[in-house]
Amino acid sequence: MDPAIYDPSVPDGLGDHDTQDLISKTGDPELGRRYLIPARQGCAVRIKAGQILTLYNPKGNQVCDFFALIDGSESEFLSMEHCRTALGRIYVRECDVLVTNRRRPLVEFVEDSSPGVHDILIACCDHHRYQQLGAQGYHDNCADNFRRSLLAIGIKAKHVPSPFNVWMNIPVSLEGDYSWEAPVSKPGDFIRLRALEDAIFVMSACPQDMTPVNGIGVEPAELEFEINLEGTD
Amino acid sequence: MDPAIYDPSVPDGLGDHDTQDLISKTGDPELGRRYLIPARQGCAVRIKAGQILTLYNPKGNQVCDFFALIDGSESEFLSMEHCRTALGRIYVRECDVLVTNRRRPLVEFVEDSSPGVHDILIACCDHHRYQQLGAQGYHDNCADNFRRSLLAIGIKAKHVPSPFNVWMNIPVSLEGDYSWEAPVSKPGDFIRLRALEDAIFVMSACPQDMTPVNGIGVEPAELEFEINLEGTD
Repeated sequence: MDPAIYDPSVPDGLGDHDTQDLISKTGDPELGRRYLIPARQGCAVRIKAGQILTLYNPKGNQVCDFFALIDGSESEFLSMEHCRTALGRIYVRECDVLVTNRRRPLVEFVEDSSPGVHDILIACCDHHRYQQLGAQGYHDNCADNFRRSLLAIGIKAKHVPSPFNVWMNIPVSLEGDYSWEAPVSKPGDFIRLRALEDAIFVMSACPQDMTPVNGIGVEPAELEFEINLEGTD
Repeated sequence: MDPAIYDPSVPDGLGDHDTQDLISKTGDPELGRRYLIPARQGCAVRIKAGQILTLYNPKGNQVCDFFALIDGSESEFLSMEHCRTALGRIYVRECDVLVTNRRRPLVEFVEDSSPGVHDILIACCDHHRYQQLGAQGYHDNCADNFRRSLLAIGIKAKHVPSPFNVWMNIPVSLEGDYSWEAPVSKPGDFIRLRALEDAIFVMSACPQDMTPVNGIGVEPAELEFEINLEGTD
């Protein structure tokens, strides 16, 4: 489970579910079809430049760890540290253009029905994080969801990027301390993201249930998404 | 210079200097010897668990982009997003333990003679950044210094991590906006970092001269470092 030589593509565990057939063998979606991402699971989907992803938060309390890679050049991906440089801010919001680790515009944040509270500072949860929090045995995690969603469409992750944590609420004080708060999004909230290059979008319904990031007194929930041609939704 | 398929190990350009022989063919240092990192250049050095790096800022205005990788497992490296999670803060300071992308403690921030203003939010500068800032032709950059310093000791970078930007001054407002300010460090300031695993430390004397991050009205300057056994300095 913890080999000396780290291979970023290899999941730390298997959990009890299988993302293999969620979309299609290639990750190509049916346009306009509403897909479910079950609670605690992930999904990789191919999206063409110009197409729009709508990501829904049916219960309202659920965070999505969102990743995007250039299709065919997966070492280039959406990079939060490069986004912060490009934006001059440590938060993202509607109308922002998000960039890769080569500073290439990859995702346009077209629309946000929620109050606009998202995080781009915190690493995705992983096996080691849950062990440190006191989990017994394997705990589903966003790093493995990322790896396994990619493996399911034949891609080995070269790195687990820092995600765009949609709806994650991490307020930062003037002194630089932050806290882990429940999302302020409402049931049915959605965001729309336009792909600016042919890309692979990976979404993980964050299985974090040991801190308040997916709400207090509620279970981690499902997400839904669809992909549409520009302007047809 | 900008191939469709991104290989993180390949520099975007060559500049006019050569880091090949700075330390040794293997990157192993002579303990207690003071090494120079010339202005705008980088250096990779091997360090054993328990040994201490002292990094000097002779002119006081110079930022160091600092990276650390597990020796022999270079896909595991010091990760700023995992450090932020571990620390509960968006800044680092003396006594902090810094962790890898597998949440393993790798670097202890033992001592800081400077006022303690450093950055862990901003990506290292690269070719694309200077093009966006209006540079004509190739500009030295920390991403290429990282790649080339590793290549000089026979290692191909799998990813260019987000660095620990020592002495970089990026104050963040309560609204999340930040500004690019001159360092507040003084001539001769130093920091000491203890390696907690056998590691490769990579340091780049940041060649940024198109924003104020290396001071105003001064040129990017050199850095110096030495490595000592624990407690012998």
